[in-house]
Amino acid sequence: MSHRLAYLNGSFIPETEMKISLLDRGFVHGDAVFDVTRTFGHKPFKLHDHIQRLYRSLQYLRIDPKITAEEVEGISLEVLNRNLPLISQDEDCTITQRISRGSSLNPVLEPGPPTVAIYNQPISFYFAKYYNSGVNLQTSTVRRIPFESLDPRAKTQNRSNNALAEMEAKLRDSESVPLILDIDGNIAESAVANFFLVSNGVIKTPSVDNCLEGITRNTVIELAQKLSIPVEEKHLQLYDAYTADEAFLTTTSYSVLPVKKIDGREIGKKTPGPVVQSLTEAWSDMVGVNIVAQAEKLATPRKDTPGG
Amino acid sequence: MSHRLAYLNGSFIPETEMKISLLDRGFVHGDAVFDVTRTFGHKPFKLHDHIQRLYRSLQYLRIDPKITAEEVEGISLEVLNRNLPLISQDEDCTITQRISRGSSLNPVLEPGPPTVAIYNQPISFYFAKYYNSGVNLQTSTVRRIPFESLDPRAKTQNRSNNALAEMEAKLRDSESVPLILDIDGNIAESAVANFFLVSNGVIKTPSVDNCLEGITRNTVIELAQKLSIPVEEKHLQLYDAYTADEAFLTTTSYSVLPVKKIDGREIGKKTPGPVVQSLTEAWSDMVGVNIVAQAEKLATPRKDTPGG
Amino acid sequence: MSHRLAYLNGSFIPETEMKISLLDRGFVHGDAVFDVTRTFGHKPFKLHDHIQRLYRSLQYLRIDPKITAEEVEGISLEVLNRNLPLISQDEDCTITQRISRGSSLNPVLEPGPPTVAIYNQPISFYFAKYYNSGVNLQTSTVRRIPFESLDPRAKTQNRSNNALAEMEAKLRDSESVPLILDIDGNIAESAVANFFLVSNGVIKTPSVDNCLEGITRNTVIELAQKLSIPVEEKHLQLYDAYTADEAFLTTTSYSVLPVKKIDGREIGKKTPGPVVQSLTEAWSDMVGVNIVAQAEKLATPRKDTPGG
Amino acid sequence: MSHRLAYLNGSFIPETEMKISLLDRGFVHGDAVFDVTRTFGHKPFKLHDHIQRLYRSLQYLRIDPKITAEEVEGISLEVLNRNLPLISQDEDCTITQRISRGSSLNPVLEPGPPTVAIYNQPISFYFAKYYNSGVNLQTSTVRRIPFESLDPRAKTQNRSNNALAEMEAKLRDSESVPLILDIDGNIAESAVANFFLVSNGVIKTPSVDNCLEGITRNTVIELAQKLSIPVEEKHLQLYDAYTADEAFLTTTSYSVLPVKKIDGREIGKKTPGPVVQSLTEAWSDMVGVNIVAQAEKLATPRKDTPGG
Amino acid sequence: MSHRLAYLNGSFIPETEMKISLLDRGFVHGDAVFDVTRTFGHKPFKLHDHIQRLYRSLQYLRIDPKITAEEVEGISLEVLNRNLPLISQDEDCTITQRISRGSSLNPVLEPGPPTVAIYNQPISFYFAKYYNSGVNLQTSTVRRIPFESLDPRAKTQNRSNNALAEMEAKLRDSESVPLILDIDGNIAESAVANFFLVSNGVIKTPSVDNCLEGITRNTVIELAQKLSIPVEEKHLQLYDAYTADEAFLTTTSYSVLPVKKIDGREIGKKTPGPVVQSLTEAWSDMVGVNIVAQAEKLATPRKDTPGG
Amino acid sequence: MSHRLAYLNGSFIPETEMKISLLDRGFVHGDAVFDVTRTFGHKPFKLHDHIQRLYRSLQYLRIDPKITAEEVEGISLEVLNRNLPLISQDEDCTITQRISRGSSLNPVLEPGPPTVAIYNQPISFYFAKYYNSGVNLQTSTVRRIPFESLDPRAKTQNRSNNALAEMEAKLRDSESVPLILDIDGNIAESAVANFFLVSNGVIKTPSVDNCLEGITRNTVIELAQKLSIPVEEKHLQLYDAYTADEAFLTTTSYSVLPVKKIDGREIGKKTPGPVVQSLTEAWSDMVGVNIVAQAEKLATPRKDTPGG
Repeated sequence: MSHRLAYLNGSFIPETEMKISLLDRGFVHGDAVFDVTRTFGHKPFKLHDHIQRLYRSLQYLRIDPKITAEEVEGISLEVLNRNLPLISQDEDCTITQRISRGSSLNPVLEPGPPTVAIYNQPISFYFAKYYNSGVNLQTSTVRRIPFESLDPRAKTQNRSNNALAEMEAKLRDSESVPLILDIDGNIAESAVANFFLVSNGVIKTPSVDNCLEGITRNTVIELAQKLSIPVEEKHLQLYDAYTADEAFLTTTSYSVLPVKKIDGREIGKKTPGPVVQSLTEAWSDMVGVNIVAQAEKLATPRKDTPGG
Repeated sequence: MSHRLAYLNGSFIPETEMKISLLDRGFVHGDAVFDVTRTFGHKPFKLHDHIQRLYRSLQYLRIDPKITAEEVEGISLEVLNRNLPLISQDEDCTITQRISRGSSLNPVLEPGPPTVAIYNQPISFYFAKYYNSGVNLQTSTVRRIPFESLDPRAKTQNRSNNALAEMEAKLRDSESVPLILDIDGNIAESAVANFFLVSNGVIKTPSVDNCLEGITRNTVIELAQKLSIPVEEKHLQLYDAYTADEAFLTTTSYSVLPVKKIDGREIGKKTPGPVVQSLTEAWSDMVGVNIVAQAEKLATPRKDTPGG
Repeated sequence: MSHRLAYLNGSFIPETEMKISLLDRGFVHGDAVFDVTRTFGHKPFKLHDHIQRLYRSLQYLRIDPKITAEEVEGISLEVLNRNLPLISQDEDCTITQRISRGSSLNPVLEPGPPTVAIYNQPISFYFAKYYNSGVNLQTSTVRRIPFESLDPRAKTQNRSNNALAEMEAKLRDSESVPLILDIDGNIAESAVANFFLVSNGVIKTPSVDNCLEGITRNTVIELAQKLSIPVEEKHLQLYDAYTADEAFLTTTSYSVLPVKKIDGREIGKKTPGPVVQSLTEAWSDMVGVNIVAQAEKLATPRKDTPGG
Repeated sequence: MSHRLAYLNGSFIPETEMKISLLDRGFVHGDAVFDVTRTFGHKPFKLHDHIQRLYRSLQYLRIDPKITAEEVEGISLEVLNRNLPLISQDEDCTITQRISRGSSLNPVLEPGPPTVAIYNQPISFYFAKYYNSGVNLQTSTVRRIPFESLDPRAKTQNRSNNALAEMEAKLRDSESVPLILDIDGNIAESAVANFFLVSNGVIKTPSVDNCLEGITRNTVIELAQKLSIPVEEKHLQLYDAYTADEAFLTTTSYSVLPVKKIDGREIGKKTPGPVVQSLTEAWSDMVGVNIVAQAEKLATPRKDTPGG
Repeated sequence: MSHRLAYLNGSFIPETEMKISLLDRGFVHGDAVFDVTRTFGHKPFKLHDHIQRLYRSLQYLRIDPKITAEEVEGISLEVLNRNLPLISQDEDCTITQRISRGSSLNPVLEPGPPTVAIYNQPISFYFAKYYNSGVNLQTSTVRRIPFESLDPRAKTQNRSNNALAEMEAKLRDSESVPLILDIDGNIAESAVANFFLVSNGVIKTPSVDNCLEGITRNTVIELAQKLSIPVEEKHLQLYDAYTADEAFLTTTSYSVLPVKKIDGREIGKKTPGPVVQSLTEAWSDMVGVNIVAQAEKLATPRKDTPGG
Repeated sequence: MSHRLAYLNGSFIPETEMKISLLDRGFVHGDAVFDVTRTFGHKPFKLHDHIQRLYRSLQYLRIDPKITAEEVEGISLEVLNRNLPLISQDEDCTITQRISRGSSLNPVLEPGPPTVAIYNQPISFYFAKYYNSGVNLQTSTVRRIPFESLDPRAKTQNRSNNALAEMEAKLRDSESVPLILDIDGNIAESAVANFFLVSNGVIKTPSVDNCLEGITRNTVIELAQKLSIPVEEKHLQLYDAYTADEAFLTTTSYSVLPVKKIDGREIGKKTPGPVVQSLTEAWSDMVGVNIVAQAEKLATPRKDTPGG
């Protein structure tokens, strides 16, 4: 996949030349938003929903992108179509949009042009093995940034909080990802994934006042409803997690991933549990791709994707 | 000043070519730290203290810079010395160090090289007029990110919170800067400046559990002690600010700046008040530059400096 | 309307003679409760519900009114009936009950008689223009008094918090009213109105643990259900407000009023939006008065009503 | 004392005619501030400090009194001088100033005249017996209104919170007054008094971010320093109170009053303890009145003073 | 009932010989969990649910009981069956399981055997009179331990918090039990009972993030649903309690008990109210025992049961 | 040391027979307090201070011990004197007092006798190696129980919170002990030790509103003052800990112990650092025992002491 094109500030350029000024506010302040869609069978999954969310992030951060949502969607498809020939039949890729406030020194009184980038990346199927073994969770010492400071539903590029949580989990247990609590101690989410548990046949997941409202999360809720599994969105605590029958994560890249242990306590009697299995199958049916088989075929040595 | 040099990842390059990959974690996550020193009379002011703070920020964020503090200090001086001939006698400049975690996808298991940049910038003396008229403060709707999420003493590049506060203040009153509260409602700081008030002859400023521990802030505290003005570091509330006899901000670029109004309430009887005047004079004496005269001479139409 | 009568402590007196001792606890402590009903087409709207709420406020504050809810309702109707001849056919009025704890120095050990006042006031239709243009909201620096201190559902006369919020909003933008957050940063309400938003076809409004349980609020929820619009009562944050498709306020005087901007961000694509329009029409149908036409006909230069 | 004069809105009137409109914002919103000074030996004690605090309360609440602090002080002395002949040699009295925002419906856009009242009241020496027996404290279920909502240092007439605490204490134990905690559970103050304790020879009292900064409180701190007793101003918790060697209250009327029990736990070994005795004597010396003897001579059956 | 047997660490012994080492962690740290079931008509009620909850408590506290839930259930039935002949036909009893972590000094590195006890106790029907008169509630000064410290859903033997609340309530009013708030001031529960209220025909009870998830509580919710009474599980505040139409407690021993007063305010018009009466009858029908008649017949002078 | 005696409820018995009823409130509720003194060179260190603290814990928990502090001190010395002959010259031991509320079912209305135990234990010098290597700290997921629920200064036997923290630390890193934060995220203490750090030559330790006021802690503060090292007692955050020059723990058994890593970050440049070394030497001088040499001589394979 070495000759992919990317879109940057109005031009299509080789992805490897995607560079920005070190003085861009996206760098010096993380003052930017982004969103990531993936393809299943080379078709983008819910691209429109991702771009709508991107525009809610822009509205929240008061960034004027100088480009419409329709245009961003069109360019995203164009970039994808240009790059798809470089991606093998079995593989899939992500489509990322990033928009920073540009380099203006005073964006109210002297606003300047934003930085807009759209590009594709191959999916690293490092997570393949966890479909069967389950991933571990480690509760982070850092708490999710509270909505009073920066709403977690806005997908901003202020993510050092995530980076700290991710590194800490790996330092304790290299097979683990973080479980991040909100400022009040409720479960918020993992670093780039939403958290779900199953208790007495009911699926529960945090309400979205302390975490990202994931498109995958919302799709899983819809799938569960189709499978007649009741779903509750509410504040959850570690007691709920430790005593659950099943737990799992959802994100754009792997869709649904079972959890084996949380802070060293084994979750449920079997990994993956029956609800995770049902959802994984329902997801594969929905997208027309056996997501577990695809990941196992393309699995490479572990390497995380940033900003998934 | 068009031919300044900068240091980037081991090389000295023209400042205008200071570019980074759009996939650098400093951009996609704001996962980087920085610090800014300024010169007075072409001499860097407390460069060593700034670099010590930079290394505390790195330690907090678990970034391994692959370069020692002594090396960063040496390069900073070298960059400055190369650029000083381009700066007129009357002018001064800032020296900025920025270190991001680089582009690694998994910094614990597969760490990669960091991004290190060191450069100078001219000081925009937009603030000259406020030495006499005082600046206004507007309390922000966003709260300072709490230390449980990302400690405000670590000078990270996660600053969208600041950007929101800064824009909101300007939208309400173009002559104002933000007054940001911590998550409990105590006064934290302005967007890139510490906050002080004077009440019954006592200088008070927030303790540093909710704000940056400014080098200028600490120097002002030392100056006050030399002037025999008592100083208290403690949690302050808006009542303290509204009913103060004087209020002022401190930061690297302007050193000390008086405040005229807070949320529309006039502070004290006269701007600048006597304590601000004493501190401004003591500062000028200390650095050997009349900071007010310098700013007035070099004042340009308003343009803020980012990340000061 | 110059000869209206009022009820005060057992007597019917001219409204202009409605005076109390400066030592009344309602004055020296704001130690009193009140409620306000309005008429539509000269008929009081849900007077019974308002008086029930008044008695919940009394129970909360441990004020013994020495008069039954039935008696207060009867006197309210009598005062209204005496004053209605002074009110033109097109106009309407409010009916206010106020009950303070009286002037006792020690209400447990030496309780004294309460102060009871019931009176009518003309409606100031200052808000007429906002039915079409929408009103702006400004987030307040003061937070709603939390239920641990004084429950916001009790309609007490401790309202300096409201006064501060109202003045601050007007000082920033004279076309605005406050948006007050609770102590945790969730949206609570405006100064004398409940807050609603519309997102993806769902009406959302704060649950009543941080705001007044408005009679108008509850009626709007019932109307929405009749119109088959789903309603959620839950904690909402500024992100919800900024990214909403529509927002509106409800209160006794204007019933339903669209919001145009919140903290400078435009809400939705059109003011009023389709849900607000449906609710306004449904309200007019329900009360038999075209509330927009009435207000436009009787609009006077702006003048707010206190304690609405 | 039946012919006392009072000042109301520019006129001197008989105190018994001190009436205000029921529509005054001081009544309908408690939207007013006040302060209370007392005399010792017919001389007002720290009247100037009380009036300075009154003006800080006005500044906080954005009330423009349309009268200067100097004028209020002058009128206060004039009212006192006119009434002193009615007060016997042994007795003393209070001087109260109250200023409400008046009756304006929109104080920003259409401000109106404030309501200003200044008057004297006899001191009810109901508290005489507690100088020896000590008063009991009962921790309140209501919490002090937090500074984010309405700063407790502003002496406003929003005091239903106090009224609830006061009644609750009396209902549990008629010999008790409340001990009110702040929103975080720290000790704030009693209903109209500051709280102090003595532990290992050190006097401790809450810092003033959660309580009124009492003039009596500050004077006691000065007296303690003169007596070489160390004083700490800091957050205190119930553990500190329950395990203290002594505890006492301070307020304008009784100056210093020992505490016997807190939530049923006996405090210390003897009431009053040695520190309270020293302070009481030092106070009497300072004001030239034996405050215990005066109270015992003039004690009347219990009757609290409101708004002390 | 003097010859009851009990199970302790593998042996059946006389209950009176149920002793443990003073160095057991259950004593020195309260480091143990327990659960209590009762019989109705000599049949254990929902024993299985209680033991499932016991194992969730063990999982939360990381105690390895070295015995399966099935074994604990079997032994519980065996102990009961051995003791039932000692209990008269009309009476019933409780079945308690207690499991401590044993006496290990380092349970991770050198784990030791747990302490396991299972025993029966007669029910003290001290509560009989309250079925008709209602019990009083007193809000506690201590707050429920928050889930961030020790989740209240885990039924641990760390219960000094409960003891303080219980004693405080009795000291204020010997006919009362505590009403304990959570750390945010919401109603959590009583000392060993869940709290319910009825408002406008709707039953409301705290959601279980701040209180024990009582088996009786859950059963009452099921009964209410069978009786077509709507139930809401949500955060409740004292305003809800004070203004309710009815209030009641639920626990294992008395099942359902009406509340008469809360903090001195009378609740509703009649005790017990109609909803409590319906639930009490439904409960009696469900278990085949008239619980009120049984209690009245067996009532003894007041004596609380600990750890019910 | 097999024939030690212990005191239990009035009798001297062999320590191995120190048993209590399983129904003792100390077991079923953890409803008890304790304190632990150690000897240096066979002399008890600050026994009086420990017993004073024990009585503050009793006062807080409303436990009436039916025995005076003087009697407890006398018995403690008697137990020690009887057991000292069994302890070798080089060794030392602890003296523990435990007092539970006994077995009363209703301690207000029907109080019963408390349980009082006093005994000695050998010191396990498992910690010897850490004097040189430093111990690691791991931030706990559980937070210290807040003072609103149960004040951490009262040394109660409700310690499951500690047990969870201790186990979690060991599961992550067997060479570590916990670092427990308070409910607001400030550093509180370790599981049975106070936390200190050194920064720029200043010793800092948490103020005692969120942790035990350790006798060792207070003694270290006194020693530091004698060594002219400034000490600050204040809220500290993880940023302070991560960026400190030195960190150490204090407790009764090991006195002072250096910290090597906190959450994987190395603290300072050398373990032990110069301040720890000075304090360790000063401690040894004060007690007349070289505490490091003693521990190294008597070190046994690791085994923690509970409830130290």
